[in-house]
Amino acid sequence: MSELLDAKVQSFRSYVKKMKSYGEALDVMYWDLRTGAPRKGVEARSEVIGELSAEMFRLSISEEMGRYVEELSEPSVFGQLDEVNRKLVDECKKEYDRSKKIPPDKYQAYVVLTSQAESIWEEAKEKADFAMFQPYLEKIVAANLEFVELWGYEGHRYNTLLDMYEPGMTVEKLDRLFADVREKLVPLVAAIRQSSRQPDTSFLKQTFDIAAQKKFSLYILKELGYDFEAGRLDESVHPFATGLNPGDVRITTRYLADDVTSALFGTIHECGHALYEQNISPELIGTPLCTGTSMGIHESQSRFWENMIGRSRTFWHRYYPKLQELYPDRFRDVSVDDFYAAINRVEPSLIRIEADELTYNLHIMIRYEIEKALFDGSLQVADLPAYWNAKYEEYLGVVPSHDGEGVLQDVHWAGGAFGYFPSYSLGNMYSAQIRRTLEQELGALDALTAEGKFAAVKEWLVERIYRYGKLRTPHDIVTSVTGEPLDPDYLIDYLKGKYGELYGL
Amino acid sequence: MSELLDAKVQSFRSYVKKMKSYGEALDVMYWDLRTGAPRKGVEARSEVIGELSAEMFRLSISEEMGRYVEELSEPSVFGQLDEVNRKLVDECKKEYDRSKKIPPDKYQAYVVLTSQAESIWEEAKEKADFAMFQPYLEKIVAANLEFVELWGYEGHRYNTLLDMYEPGMTVEKLDRLFADVREKLVPLVAAIRQSSRQPDTSFLKQTFDIAAQKKFSLYILKELGYDFEAGRLDESVHPFATGLNPGDVRITTRYLADDVTSALFGTIHECGHALYEQNISPELIGTPLCTGTSMGIHESQSRFWENMIGRSRTFWHRYYPKLQELYPDRFRDVSVDDFYAAINRVEPSLIRIEADELTYNLHIMIRYEIEKALFDGSLQVADLPAYWNAKYEEYLGVVPSHDGEGVLQDVHWAGGAFGYFPSYSLGNMYSAQIRRTLEQELGALDALTAEGKFAAVKEWLVERIYRYGKLRTPHDIVTSVTGEPLDPDYLIDYLKGKYGELYGL
Repeated sequence: MSELLDAKVQSFRSYVKKMKSYGEALDVMYWDLRTGAPRKGVEARSEVIGELSAEMFRLSISEEMGRYVEELSEPSVFGQLDEVNRKLVDECKKEYDRSKKIPPDKYQAYVVLTSQAESIWEEAKEKADFAMFQPYLEKIVAANLEFVELWGYEGHRYNTLLDMYEPGMTVEKLDRLFADVREKLVPLVAAIRQSSRQPDTSFLKQTFDIAAQKKFSLYILKELGYDFEAGRLDESVHPFATGLNPGDVRITTRYLADDVTSALFGTIHECGHALYEQNISPELIGTPLCTGTSMGIHESQSRFWENMIGRSRTFWHRYYPKLQELYPDRFRDVSVDDFYAAINRVEPSLIRIEADELTYNLHIMIRYEIEKALFDGSLQVADLPAYWNAKYEEYLGVVPSHDGEGVLQDVHWAGGAFGYFPSYSLGNMYSAQIRRTLEQELGALDALTAEGKFAAVKEWLVERIYRYGKLRTPHDIVTSVTGEPLDPDYLIDYLKGKYGELYGL
Repeated sequence: MSELLDAKVQSFRSYVKKMKSYGEALDVMYWDLRTGAPRKGVEARSEVIGELSAEMFRLSISEEMGRYVEELSEPSVFGQLDEVNRKLVDECKKEYDRSKKIPPDKYQAYVVLTSQAESIWEEAKEKADFAMFQPYLEKIVAANLEFVELWGYEGHRYNTLLDMYEPGMTVEKLDRLFADVREKLVPLVAAIRQSSRQPDTSFLKQTFDIAAQKKFSLYILKELGYDFEAGRLDESVHPFATGLNPGDVRITTRYLADDVTSALFGTIHECGHALYEQNISPELIGTPLCTGTSMGIHESQSRFWENMIGRSRTFWHRYYPKLQELYPDRFRDVSVDDFYAAINRVEPSLIRIEADELTYNLHIMIRYEIEKALFDGSLQVADLPAYWNAKYEEYLGVVPSHDGEGVLQDVHWAGGAFGYFPSYSLGNMYSAQIRRTLEQELGALDALTAEGKFAAVKEWLVERIYRYGKLRTPHDIVTSVTGEPLDPDYLIDYLKGKYGELYGL
């Protein structure tokens, strides 16, 4: 590489690092707002966030950035770059091209619209009043349709939105994946509902001292290999993980006095996200590549640690005595196997975030069908509630009694996040497939869990997935790790095995 | 005001607000670093802080800012502005002119120098090794001398540095103020040391449950009127208050298991700073005027609440039963008056931050004499330790056994903060003078304290001082509130009264 090119690359990297600095500052402020910032400072803080976000956006579409991506993506130049810089140029170019296509006034209006819509949604959900939210949602869908036209699309319009969360994912692929899963899952759910063996869950709904819950969460985090020198556990209304940089990946959970498992599984879920972010290669720090490669792969890790480890029988054979010790009078008469059955109870329900591991996928498919239909024009926003309720009856056999527990339950659409939902189910599929390869190389996950060999599990995942951050695409990750493209049968097999055994099918 | 001028003012205000946004983002990150950010993220975070600080500095000296301050400070234009905008233009012009006079490469080198010096100082203090720190301090003093030449000065070179922390303060004024205080204070300290009445403080040095200490700190904060919807209490190694905006003014304290008063008085001290910042007029939000008018006035408020209220006899007659309740077996045989005497024990000592209310001022005067001498060239850095020790012997009758408890004890000089120390004693003087006026209007502070009428005290201070933020100068505040310029006799009278009674003089 010539000295001139080297200088240009250095200058590009400095510019990218500056942008990333805004990102970290914003992430610290978001974390702070959610974990205890005083109420009266929120308004002023929102304006600070607005100023810095706008500045970050300006940097991403500046003439300077335009020159960098143009000059560095020139084939004769691009070929001289190393792997990290090539990917970095690609990412910045993608973002630059996408942002440049939206006129700034339209983008600004959209930011205002979604911000208003989120607060209207909150009220509408509370009041179960879809009509109140409808005009906002109509404008948000219309804006996204317009953006898709400006961005361009191949095949289905929705593909362009999917690609934002899961690079390379398309309606064509998802249709096949989801049809396959649905076809095999619906009969399994039906068989479970008809099984004579239904677990008792009443003992989960006692009162549980919060301090002891916190102690248990911290204990399990240490066991799983969460690095407390590179993170911290706080509380928030909705649990989340945020990777400020690999040395500072924070998680939150929510303690409920009448439910001992909510905080715990929330903690383990976020721990999965955090293990990913804590172990990204240091060479990616200060770049947009220093994060998970996609929402789907990220979710595969939270679900792997939460469901495949945290909700496994061997996990509880190992840790149930510790839980009993913390609550001696709560679980005295509950066997570990009864406890295991209770935390894995399958029950079609109305609320996605409370759904079990198995029916969860059906909640996602409903949202996927709806988003697809909104973007091919076959469904109008006004018809959403009826469509939603019909789909719930069809897929899950339950019907919301009002829109608050139906179409208004999720915040995603108020924020304009169309294309996000499929990530959750993709995460389940990825995790099952990755698990299979891990077991071929390290032995049965249940055996590893029984012996608490989480360090070995984590190291394997670091080596194969985590360290690459966004350097490899989700497709590359899956094929390089497992030797084949995403195949939903691994998930089906896993679910059939686990729940067949639990429900005596 | 013409539409054109109005538009220009609006645009100036937006620009200023953007700068202030960087300030709030930086303050959140500093707060976070000090209250529990994970160790491994500190390095990346420091770079983020560096990027945003540099950006904020660029905004303060940009051509755009140059045009604003030039055009808006034009007399024909300036005269049309309202009070807030006039003061804002003045502040921005002062900052712009000051920053513009330092060549950017010199400023950059100085930032690096002080940042290195702070970590070297930490090690040097630990090892009591002045020689290790000396070359850094020499460079820092030299750089400040050079800056003073570039900035210009009237009278003493040190005046320019004093003005940064206490606008309008000069060596000429401080010499008179400090001579007066020293002359009257030294005999008082001597008389106290010779008094046969010396309080027992042994019962303060038992072990005290931290959770109960925290409970008491939170209780006292509520009593004093700290608004928890506009702030929060956290822990940090060195207590501090930070006003992100008036709706978010956070304080920290430090709990010591073997000292029940350290955290409490730390809390009350920071509460004083916070009451000031929580009550600045909302019209100043988003401007650099939204903070205390000077370090001295700020310190007057922390000291007013900590010393004049928190260390008063009536305060403890009111709250001692509560403390006894929290620690039933610790204070059973200690009378409230013995407790009061113990927390006000006067004892010449080596360490400023551990000094009592009375001798504290002598620690400050020593630092003032040294800074003055460094900047008029009569003292060289190499001679500092000997000079320091001689002054401690002269003013306090004690001599450090090594430089770690002597000249190396404070971080200020490592950070280049020359001119800051006098603020602490000015705060004491201001608070005594303000107290006198408050008592003339609201009645004796002891009576108000006895009845817990802190809301009335706070409202009076809000009305006279807090709401103005930086809109009025320290001198304007003092004269408008008390009807006369700063007069150290109020402090002397207060100290003589309080300690004369305590020590039976």
